[in-house]
Amino acid sequence: MNDTSNVLFDDEALRIIEKMKTAEARHLAERRAQEEECACKEGMFPTRAPTDRRAFLRAAGTAAGGAAAALLPGAARAADSKAPPGAQYFDVPADPTKELGRAVAADGGYGSRSQFESEVRWRFPTANEYTSWSMTPLDKMVGNLTASGLHFERHHGGIPTIDPSKHMLFVHGMVDSAKKFTMADLKRFPSVTRKYFIECSGNGLTEWNKPTLKTVQGTHGLISTSEWTGVQFAVIAREIGLKDGGTWVLAEGADAAVMTRSIPLEKMLKDAILAYGQNGEAIRPEQGYPLRLMLPGYEGNTHIKWLRRLEISDKPFMTREETSKYTDLLATGKARQFSFDMEAKSVITFPSGEMKLPGPGFYSVSGLAWSGRGRVQSVDVSVDAGKTWYPARLDTVAEPICTVRFSFPWMWDGKPAVLQSRCTDETGYVQPTLKELIAIRGSNGPFGSIYHLNAIQSWAVAADGSVTNVHA
Amino acid sequence: MNDTSNVLFDDEALRIIEKMKTAEARHLAERRAQEEECACKEGMFPTRAPTDRRAFLRAAGTAAGGAAAALLPGAARAADSKAPPGAQYFDVPADPTKELGRAVAADGGYGSRSQFESEVRWRFPTANEYTSWSMTPLDKMVGNLTASGLHFERHHGGIPTIDPSKHMLFVHGMVDSAKKFTMADLKRFPSVTRKYFIECSGNGLTEWNKPTLKTVQGTHGLISTSEWTGVQFAVIAREIGLKDGGTWVLAEGADAAVMTRSIPLEKMLKDAILAYGQNGEAIRPEQGYPLRLMLPGYEGNTHIKWLRRLEISDKPFMTREETSKYTDLLATGKARQFSFDMEAKSVITFPSGEMKLPGPGFYSVSGLAWSGRGRVQSVDVSVDAGKTWYPARLDTVAEPICTVRFSFPWMWDGKPAVLQSRCTDETGYVQPTLKELIAIRGSNGPFGSIYHLNAIQSWAVAADGSVTNVHA
Repeated sequence: MNDTSNVLFDDEALRIIEKMKTAEARHLAERRAQEEECACKEGMFPTRAPTDRRAFLRAAGTAAGGAAAALLPGAARAADSKAPPGAQYFDVPADPTKELGRAVAADGGYGSRSQFESEVRWRFPTANEYTSWSMTPLDKMVGNLTASGLHFERHHGGIPTIDPSKHMLFVHGMVDSAKKFTMADLKRFPSVTRKYFIECSGNGLTEWNKPTLKTVQGTHGLISTSEWTGVQFAVIAREIGLKDGGTWVLAEGADAAVMTRSIPLEKMLKDAILAYGQNGEAIRPEQGYPLRLMLPGYEGNTHIKWLRRLEISDKPFMTREETSKYTDLLATGKARQFSFDMEAKSVITFPSGEMKLPGPGFYSVSGLAWSGRGRVQSVDVSVDAGKTWYPARLDTVAEPICTVRFSFPWMWDGKPAVLQSRCTDETGYVQPTLKELIAIRGSNGPFGSIYHLNAIQSWAVAADGSVTNVHA
Repeated sequence: MNDTSNVLFDDEALRIIEKMKTAEARHLAERRAQEEECACKEGMFPTRAPTDRRAFLRAAGTAAGGAAAALLPGAARAADSKAPPGAQYFDVPADPTKELGRAVAADGGYGSRSQFESEVRWRFPTANEYTSWSMTPLDKMVGNLTASGLHFERHHGGIPTIDPSKHMLFVHGMVDSAKKFTMADLKRFPSVTRKYFIECSGNGLTEWNKPTLKTVQGTHGLISTSEWTGVQFAVIAREIGLKDGGTWVLAEGADAAVMTRSIPLEKMLKDAILAYGQNGEAIRPEQGYPLRLMLPGYEGNTHIKWLRRLEISDKPFMTREETSKYTDLLATGKARQFSFDMEAKSVITFPSGEMKLPGPGFYSVSGLAWSGRGRVQSVDVSVDAGKTWYPARLDTVAEPICTVRFSFPWMWDGKPAVLQSRCTDETGYVQPTLKELIAIRGSNGPFGSIYHLNAIQSWAVAADGSVTNVHA
């Protein structure tokens, strides 16, 4: 029923693709405008606060608080309109060594990023913004962790606001004694701390049949990495006692979608974490505050956020999210179900789509690689569309089920090139080309039911240095 | 000249100690009040937004923007006065599954922490708030990383606001060709990403002679851990070429204090990083945006923030920060100079000062251990003031020059106890008791010139469960 060599797009799919392209173009234009306003270019800021006190007060507006604050060196403006999200605006002295900086906050405070940093996530143009997602700007990231404020999002009924003092986790079903736990109860158990990525199974959904989105934020931005802290499910299992015969666990969220997935009990006992910590503080609201199920290496939607219930059973629950959604329709017309594992994958983030190299010369090509099945073993890089492969350097220590930053020293001769990266994980699995992947899985188009796109990504570098998303 | 067994406090020291105690008590009271207001206790929030539209509009105030925003489910209030720093306030539904959550931000946004999380740093009561510091709330932390917004601060002339497009790093002195680098230049070099702690040499300064501060935020809050990304100095050194005979490097900051330190060239070539990234995004302003010198394992003040100049020389520069300040006056009257290494240390963060255990029973004692000389090898815990030691579990993988979270399962019998932890690093060095440390270094009182306090910390648990800072 499916032609895997020449996939058809129906009218609806074409309309949605056009919508995505338009939305991404608008996002890019806004990002550029904001970067310019944030004076990533010279001469955009007043270089010095006015020294005439009257002009100063006028500039600071009429509000007494604003005027008073403006009299302090390096003070924040009353109106913070010039600062990007997550930042505060401060006047910029011409020579920072000649003016006293800003004081330590009276209460010690909670720091924010610089006003010169304007990266934001990108909201995918879904029909409504409550059942939507936002993507991490991988092209703007450095290192390996994702800044908590830029972790990708995927919600099915918006982000609930939950009072942690009232939140409960119920554990029941085939257990010796069903129990409910407050957050305080859960925090009394021994905790573990692990660095893991989470990747949405829909990451790259748009790219199955032809290169659709322009930037790596669009093509790969549904992956993020954090340090997670919480209680192992195995500890809770000992507390409640498991009856013989249990094989599956239903995990349920406390959001408006009451998001539910069935998880093999074996996986839950192996390495599931009931996480309340992210990067040293409480898990962020968009990531499931106050409690999230961490299932290392499993597709993102199974990491149930705002976790409130776990029910042990002897069979899967066949929820909407594992029947209608999150199954993979194959070329045969049959669907893969419970395709949990996120397979080995990698992507070059520099240079990537919409960037422009200033000219021939040395570039440190850089990207991220990961596998849901264990550690990244190695990464190879090609600059000739996969004809020749060279080993990349791993810049960070490969941890299990964690992204690793890789790099490759490239002397660009100024001729057109196609950059690719290929990940091999510790199981020996090698990241496939798109052609290899489609030969196995088929392709039912971007709005059929094809998730788990982990094919090699290609970026074409033109002679003028401009970089574009291509299938090569 | 010093009596190490019975240290004298002069009047000035006593006055400052009283000031610190008062300031810490005020901080604690504020923290408690804020936690209550943030409804960490039940019944503090309206459980549901009014359903009558007129009442709704009245409640939302007269501003049209505010009223419109309030009509959306889970919308932020126009006035965000109820939210702690770094958070936004949202109404809390009685049952989050029965109301649509908040939408993904139109621009994808930059996330913030939950309104129920109110941890802040604590500003140490220095004479002025520009030459001051703030401390990480270790008692409120989970995991191993420090949330970027809670990284401790130490400034000598306030926090400068620096436009990265104008910032330059000058490298000169005994080199083949002096060069200046823009931030864009530095980012073109290959980067490395490493997780390191930074500890102020003054961490625990207050605790040399008697237990002064009440909480672990006060006694140990001048340590924080981040993932740092940047260019190795060794790469820059190859770029500029080093002349024979160079042995020291002056590092200079672009703040109002023009903070300077002399660093051995050998250290710079071994593992110094010119860091522009922190936890996946640009380094935070308080941490040196846009460029900071990372010197793994060295005392915090040498990690020059807002780095603008490196000068290679054949001798140290004898700056104020290594002559008048940051030297350690010994009992003999001589001072240790260039005492860079932060030695092995650990502290129990749960339970810790000002906490109260609800009653006898099981507790997962937890804390952090670190060494500036390499990996943590092991941590031991005592519950009887050091008479008996048991091995603790390392909850995270020990990385070089990085904190590690440890834990110890403790069945408290309800009798008074004294909890201690002791770190051994991979060099075999064992964290000393205070008595052992004073026997070697002497004690010139907390405002003499004694830095580098890495002694074992004791927390006394009383029969009523209350925990206090003691010397035991």
